Amino acid sequence: MARADYPQPVVELIAELKRLPGIGPRSAERVAVWLLQHKQSNPLELSESLCRAKEQVTSCSVCGFFATADGCPVCSDDSRDAQEICVVEQATDVLPLERSGAFKGFYHCLGGKLSPLDHVTPDDLRIAPLLRRLEKTPKVEVILALGADVEGEATSNYLAELLASRDCSVTRIAQGISAGGGIDHADELTLMRAMQGRRRVE
Amino acid sequence: MARADYPQPVVELIAELKRLPGIGPRSAERVAVWLLQHKQSNPLELSESLCRAKEQVTSCSVCGFFATADGCPVCSDDSRDAQEICVVEQATDVLPLERSGAFKGFYHCLGGKLSPLDHVTPDDLRIAPLLRRLEKTPKVEVILALGADVEGEATSNYLAELLASRDCSVTRIAQGISAGGGIDHADELTLMRAMQGRRRVE
Repeated sequence: MARADYPQPVVELIAELKRLPGIGPRSAERVAVWLLQHKQSNPLELSESLCRAKEQVTSCSVCGFFATADGCPVCSDDSRDAQEICVVEQATDVLPLERSGAFKGFYHCLGGKLSPLDHVTPDDLRIAPLLRRLEKTPKVEVILALGADVEGEATSNYLAELLASRDCSVTRIAQGISAGGGIDHADELTLMRAMQGRRRVE
Repeated sequence: MARADYPQPVVELIAELKRLPGIGPRSAERVAVWLLQHKQSNPLELSESLCRAKEQVTSCSVCGFFATADGCPVCSDDSRDAQEICVVEQATDVLPLERSGAFKGFYHCLGGKLSPLDHVTPDDLRIAPLLRRLEKTPKVEVILALGADVEGEATSNYLAELLASRDCSVTRIAQGISAGGGIDHADELTLMRAMQGRRRVE
């Protein structure tokens, strides 16, 4: 007697789903079965969405954010402040900043952060395109909005040093306690940064 | 200035992914971005897998397990014991039982369990096909392998009563402490069932 298993197309679907980030073998099985059995599932719609997104979505050659045939929604927006370029790690970092409403300039996505252990060197990041942008637009403010982890800090320091001699001003977003967060929940390093970055109350 | 957002195809992909079970808005976003940006992702392969599975996989008209054009892998296996039919809730319950290797008969998937609160009545389950199967194969052992929750218990009791007058024997899988589990971690009801189901050591 052969032990019964899912039919081959289901096994293949589970294998594909299992490769997605954050989806383990059991979730993959659950999602596959749901897609095939649930009344409200629509696997063909998902399939088409995947094709459409893959075909139509590219990366903006200037800033690295998502772009389509219509161009990049950020770079094509003339109402933005051309004197501010915010440097972020990934294209996905743009949206949280946009949602905050605190920044109205342009972006530059590096495509990662320096990480010698993962063999990510300055050449792997979009640093050369950033320098070319700065040559075309002198006297801009370059705002470093990279993560506060070790690699993010290293990348920020590297860029700050690299840009020091260029015709631009360089700033970094503040580190401190998060909105709504109590002192008792903040870690020591965060509190140290918050203390160092304190500002006069006016 | 318009706040930048993902291009429409990405927004649609995220919306489709968000509908999957166990995938929230943030995971959906992460998966979509990974599919579009990661070198090892293969969205078109996933898309094709979905179509193939949806097209080729059906439900076996006899037992309710997954079937393809080649038929049902369980029902078409002549080496199985025709004198045993194991009743489970869902098609997905078949695989854990198959993997345990403890059962070598045929299955019958009900497609759910009795649940008056969710308007699931006996008519909504594959009970009539079960009765027709039993008429064709007299004197089989019907093994009830339904869940030990309230609805599973109710369904087991309903089936046991319904089948009492038929030409078959009815058994239920044992309830007790799980393999590798200590007494201190088992809940009271499980311990009660384990005690009631105790067997003489031989």
